[in-house]
Amino acid sequence: KELSLAPNLITFDRAKMEDLLKRRFFYDQSFAIYGGITGQFDFGPMGCAFKANLLHNWRQFFVLEEQMLEVDCSILTPEPVLKASGHVERFADLMTKDVTTGECFRLDHLIKAHLEKLSADKKTTNDVKAECQDIIIKLDGMNKDEMHSVMKKFNMKSPLTGNDLTEPIEFNLMFATQIGPSGLIKGFLRPETAQGIFVNFKRLLEFNQGRLPFAAAQIGNSFRNEISPRSGLIRVREFTMAEIEHFCDPKDKRHSKFDNVKDIELLLYSACNQMDGKPAEKRTIGEAVAKGLVANETLGYFMARIQQFLIRCGVDPPRLRFRQHMSNEMAHYAQDCWDAECLTSYGWVECVGCADRSAYDLTQHTKATGIRLAAEKKLSEPKIVDVLEVVPNKSVFGKTFRKDAALVTEKLTVLDKTEIANLENEIKTHGSYNLHAGDQKFVLTNEMVTIKRYQKTEYVEEIIPSVIEPSFGIGRIMYAIFEHNFKVRDNDDQRTYLSLPSNVAPLKCSVLPLSSNAEFQPFVKKLSAELTKVDVSHKVDDSSGSIGRRYARTDEIAIPYGVTIDFDTLKEPHSATLRERDTMEQVRIPLTELPNIVHDLSFNKILWSDVLQKYPKFEQQETKT
Amino acid sequence: KELSLAPNLITFDRAKMEDLLKRRFFYDQSFAIYGGITGQFDFGPMGCAFKANLLHNWRQFFVLEEQMLEVDCSILTPEPVLKASGHVERFADLMTKDVTTGECFRLDHLIKAHLEKLSADKKTTNDVKAECQDIIIKLDGMNKDEMHSVMKKFNMKSPLTGNDLTEPIEFNLMFATQIGPSGLIKGFLRPETAQGIFVNFKRLLEFNQGRLPFAAAQIGNSFRNEISPRSGLIRVREFTMAEIEHFCDPKDKRHSKFDNVKDIELLLYSACNQMDGKPAEKRTIGEAVAKGLVANETLGYFMARIQQFLIRCGVDPPRLRFRQHMSNEMAHYAQDCWDAECLTSYGWVECVGCADRSAYDLTQHTKATGIRLAAEKKLSEPKIVDVLEVVPNKSVFGKTFRKDAALVTEKLTVLDKTEIANLENEIKTHGSYNLHAGDQKFVLTNEMVTIKRYQKTEYVEEIIPSVIEPSFGIGRIMYAIFEHNFKVRDNDDQRTYLSLPSNVAPLKCSVLPLSSNAEFQPFVKKLSAELTKVDVSHKVDDSSGSIGRRYARTDEIAIPYGVTIDFDTLKEPHSATLRERDTMEQVRIPLTELPNIVHDLSFNKILWSDVLQKYPKFEQQETKT
Repeated sequence: KELSLAPNLITFDRAKMEDLLKRRFFYDQSFAIYGGITGQFDFGPMGCAFKANLLHNWRQFFVLEEQMLEVDCSILTPEPVLKASGHVERFADLMTKDVTTGECFRLDHLIKAHLEKLSADKKTTNDVKAECQDIIIKLDGMNKDEMHSVMKKFNMKSPLTGNDLTEPIEFNLMFATQIGPSGLIKGFLRPETAQGIFVNFKRLLEFNQGRLPFAAAQIGNSFRNEISPRSGLIRVREFTMAEIEHFCDPKDKRHSKFDNVKDIELLLYSACNQMDGKPAEKRTIGEAVAKGLVANETLGYFMARIQQFLIRCGVDPPRLRFRQHMSNEMAHYAQDCWDAECLTSYGWVECVGCADRSAYDLTQHTKATGIRLAAEKKLSEPKIVDVLEVVPNKSVFGKTFRKDAALVTEKLTVLDKTEIANLENEIKTHGSYNLHAGDQKFVLTNEMVTIKRYQKTEYVEEIIPSVIEPSFGIGRIMYAIFEHNFKVRDNDDQRTYLSLPSNVAPLKCSVLPLSSNAEFQPFVKKLSAELTKVDVSHKVDDSSGSIGRRYARTDEIAIPYGVTIDFDTLKEPHSATLRERDTMEQVRIPLTELPNIVHDLSFNKILWSDVLQKYPKFEQQETKT
Repeated sequence: KELSLAPNLITFDRAKMEDLLKRRFFYDQSFAIYGGITGQFDFGPMGCAFKANLLHNWRQFFVLEEQMLEVDCSILTPEPVLKASGHVERFADLMTKDVTTGECFRLDHLIKAHLEKLSADKKTTNDVKAECQDIIIKLDGMNKDEMHSVMKKFNMKSPLTGNDLTEPIEFNLMFATQIGPSGLIKGFLRPETAQGIFVNFKRLLEFNQGRLPFAAAQIGNSFRNEISPRSGLIRVREFTMAEIEHFCDPKDKRHSKFDNVKDIELLLYSACNQMDGKPAEKRTIGEAVAKGLVANETLGYFMARIQQFLIRCGVDPPRLRFRQHMSNEMAHYAQDCWDAECLTSYGWVECVGCADRSAYDLTQHTKATGIRLAAEKKLSEPKIVDVLEVVPNKSVFGKTFRKDAALVTEKLTVLDKTEIANLENEIKTHGSYNLHAGDQKFVLTNEMVTIKRYQKTEYVEEIIPSVIEPSFGIGRIMYAIFEHNFKVRDNDDQRTYLSLPSNVAPLKCSVLPLSSNAEFQPFVKKLSAELTKVDVSHKVDDSSGSIGRRYARTDEIAIPYGVTIDFDTLKEPHSATLRERDTMEQVRIPLTELPNIVHDLSFNKILWSDVLQKYPKFEQQETKT
C-alpha cells in the first residue's frame, strides 16, 4: 500500500545506481585491497564533499538558526558512563551461532528470513502464512525467550549449513578497549554522541547563563559492532551522527517558534494505525499536537523542522513519513518517539529518530556521580516553606568531638526532614542519638544540639529538565538521497545521473573547454580562479572527450551547473554557455557575470528560472557537439 | 635565544588563560563528573565553533584551492593494514614501571625531568650539567638500550615513590579492539588518517583519470594511547588531524604553483644549525629549495602554504618556525621532513609535519596485498623492449592437462624473464621443466611450449609515486592560536580576551540592547534574523549587565564585532553602533547596511579600516555607559 506512493521504486535499479556510486567513488568498501570488512565504508571525493555539504547545511539549518550550543566530545568513553546510561547492560542484539562452524547470525534477521521464505512457499497453509506475518510484525518487540520459542517452533537451522543453532545469545554491540598503559581502565567507543552532551550538562547550562530551554548539538562518529552488517550504508559499524538534545521544563514543553511550522503537513504513521493495519495519514503538525497524537509542541516543532531539512537536502517528499514507536519498542522512560523514515529499495528506513526521553539520562548520571544535573526554575510566585534545622552547640561540640567537630557539623547539615525528626524523637525518648559518618559513630545528646523550626521564602525550585532528542543518521540520509535522486535520461538508459540539489551537490560547477584549442586555456584558468574566489567548488575537465560525453560524466557526479568555453568565448564581449543538469537547458552569459551567477545558483540565492528569463537561451544540441 | 623573539611570552600567564578557556567552556576535561580521564577533552560551544571554522578555512585554503580529492575513511582498521604500514611493530613509546606500585612513566619524559632537575641543582658539577644537556638534546634519537644505560648511569627511581623502576618496556600506542561478533578479527583505532588514503590510492588515481600529480586529503579523528598524557591539548589520546598526501613522480617533484610562493620568507631551523648549536635563520622558500636546504619544490610549496594558513588563522608570525628533522629522528624512508613549530609556554610545539615519505607507504601496501599501487607515466619517447614469452601448444596442453590446462596456461603468463630463461634451459638440457602451481606440479616438455622472442614498443612505464605529506594536528594548532591571541587590556589586568581573527572566531557578532527597554526588542529580533540570513553566527546578550560588562563577556569569547541597539536606534533613519574588539573603536551605521557590513568584515571581504573611513566614529566611552 505504501509503495503505491512511490512509482519510481518500481523502475529503480539498485545495481545500476551502485555501479555509478562505486565507479565514480562516492563510497566503497573500506580496506578492499585487504579483502575488506563488512559494515565499513570509505567516502571518496564526491561522497565526502556531499557529506561535508550535508553537515554544513545541518549546521546552518539547526545550530545557527536556533543558536544551539554545539559541542565536540570524546569518542573513547570510560565504562562507568555507559553503565549509567544503560548501554553496558542493555545495548545488545540477540544472536545465534551455528554449533559446528561458529558462524554468527543476528537472530531477528534470521527469524524474519526464515518466516518470509516459509510464507512464500506454495506448500505452506494459509494459517501458517498468517502466523508468520503476525510474528514478523511483532518481531521488533520480542524478547529473548519469545524469539527462542519461535526458533524452536519452526525448527530453525543455519541457513548456510543446515546445522543446529545455539540458544539466543545477547551480544553487546559496543567496541571495547583499554585506556592507558596499565590495561586496567576499560573503555568503549561511544555507541551514540548523546552521552557526551549529558555529561556536560552543567557546563552547558552555565554557558547559557542558567536559563532553560536550550539545545545542545553534536556531530560526530559513533560505533556499533553489528553482528552481520549488510544493506550497504544502511547498517554499518561506524557512522556519523548529528544529534540534538533540547533541554526544557518537564512541565512546559511548548516551543516559541511552533507557530512558524504549525501548518506544515506531515505523513504520520501512528502507533494506533500500525496496530490496526491502517495506512499513514497526512496531518498538519499543529493539528497532530492539538489532538495529542504528537506528545508536545517541542517534539512537533522538531518533526516539522526535520522534514524541512530532509526535503531541502534532496529527500523526495512522497517517500518520507514519520512512524511512531509502538509501546513495546519504545524505551520505558520515553514519552513519545517518531522516526523519520525514507522509502528506499530496502523498504522504509529510519533516518532520523525524534524522541522525548523525559529526564531519564540526566537522572541516571546524577545517580551515578552524585552530582546534581539539574536546573533552577523561577517559581511563578514565591513559596513559603517550613524549615527544620539542627543547630550545633559549638563549644560543647568542640570539647566533645575535637578534631571531628567539623565533620559532625557538616553531617548534620545534610540530614533531611525525616532524619531530623527522628533525631529529635530519639533524643527526647532515649536521651541520645547515634550519628553515623563514614565508619565512625558519634553520640549526640540534648545539650549538644538545638532543633530550630522556621519558615523561609523560596523563589526558585530545582528541576531535572526533560530532553527532546532529534538524532540524525547521516549515512542513512545520504543513502536515501542517493536513491531518491538517481535518474536515467529519457532517451538513453545508459545515461544515469544524480539530481542532488545544488546546496548539497559535491561540486557546484564544471568548466569545460570545447576542445583542446590552446586559446581556450587562459579563459578556463581565469574562470577557475574566479570561481575559487567566490567559494564555488568546481571541476575543470579538459580531457579529450566530446562535450556531450563530458557533460554525461559531470551529470554522474551530480554537478548542477556546467560552463563551456567555446569559440564565441574568444570574441568580445567574452561569454560562455551555462547549462543546468536536470533540464539540460543552456543560456549564454557574459564571463564577467558568470562567477556570481553560479555562486547565487549554487547556494539557492537565485533560481534557474531567474537565469532563463534574463539571458538568451543557447539552442545547440549536446548530441551535435 | 629563540625566546627573545617573543617578548609576550615573558608576561604570559597560562593559569589566567586556562581559567578563561575553562570558565567560558572553550574546552575542558572529558567525563569530569566521573572523575575524568587524562588526555581527553571535550570542546564546548566556543571551542567547537572555533574548531569547525578552522577546519572550514582549511578546506577552503587547501582542498578547494588545490582541488584536492578529499576522502573520509574508516577509523577502525584491521590489523593487516597496520602491520604493513609498520605501526603494529614500531608505533610504540618506551615506558618504565614502578616495580612496587605498577605506575607507568613515559621513559623519555622521566629521563628529561630527572636530568633537568639534576642540572638545576647547585651541587651538580659543570661537567655533569654539560653531560645532562647533551643527553637531553640527543634524547629524541635514542633507542631502548641507550636510554636504559642513561637510567642506570644516573640511578633513576620513581619520581613519585622513590621505588625501583623496571627495564624499558615498549608500549604500542594503538588502541586495540575486536571487530565482529566472533572475537577473531583484531582491529585498531587508526593512529593517523594517512593509511586510509594509501589503501584507496587506486580508486583515487582512477578518479583523477590516471594522472599525476594529485593530492588527496582527509580530516578526521585519530587515537594514540599515550602513556601519561599531560600538557593539555598538546598531548591527548584522541585528536583531529587534517592530512594531505600529494602523490607525484619520484623523479619530478617540481610544483606548478611554486613561483607563487617562492618569495615568502620562512624561519628555518635546519638540521645542521641544530647540530652546530646555531639559531634558526630567515630564508625565502625559493632560496631554500634552490640551495638544496629543502629537498624539493613540492615540499617547499607546502611549507610556504602551511605558513600562510597558520598566520591567516591567528598564529603569531614571530612565534612560528620550521624545524628540520635530524637524520636520527627521521624515518629511514623519509627524504626530508620539516615540522612547523609554534612557540608556546610549553616551548616549541610541533603543529604541522611536512615530510617527503618517498614511495614507502604505497610500496608496503603493494607488498602486503599483491595489488600494485602504481601509476603509469608516459615515456618522453617510446621505448623498444625485448619480450620473452612462453606460448603453449594448446592441443597438447588440452590432452595432457585437461581441466588444469587453463591454470597451467595462466601460470606461464606470469613467469618473469629469468624464470622463462630457466625453463628454456631446463627443457634444452633435461628434456623437461617442473612447473609449480599452488600445491600441484606439472611437467612441461619440448613439444608443449614454444619460446618466443620479439621486440615491442612501450609508451608508458609503471612508477610508484612519491608522497609529500603535510599533516596538521588541529588541537595543537588551536592551542597555539589560543596562546598567541590571549590578551589583557592595558588598563585592567582582570579584563582578559581572545583576539582570534574573525575568519576563525567562534561567533562573528554580538547584538546587545543597551537596556531592557521593550522598544529595543523588535530591532534586536529583526537584526538577529537578518544576520542569520547572511550566515553570520552571532549571540544576542539581553542580560542585565552594563554594556561595558557585556562587551567584556563577548571579548572573552573572541567575538570580533558588537552591535548595540540604543536610544538613537529608535529614531529614523534607524542606526546602531558597531564596535571592533581589539581596538574597541566604534562607528555608527544605518541598520539596513549593518548585516552585509558585518558579513563582509567577518569573512575578510573588507577591513575595519574601510569601515572607519566610511562611517562616523562613535565616541562614547564604554566605561561611561
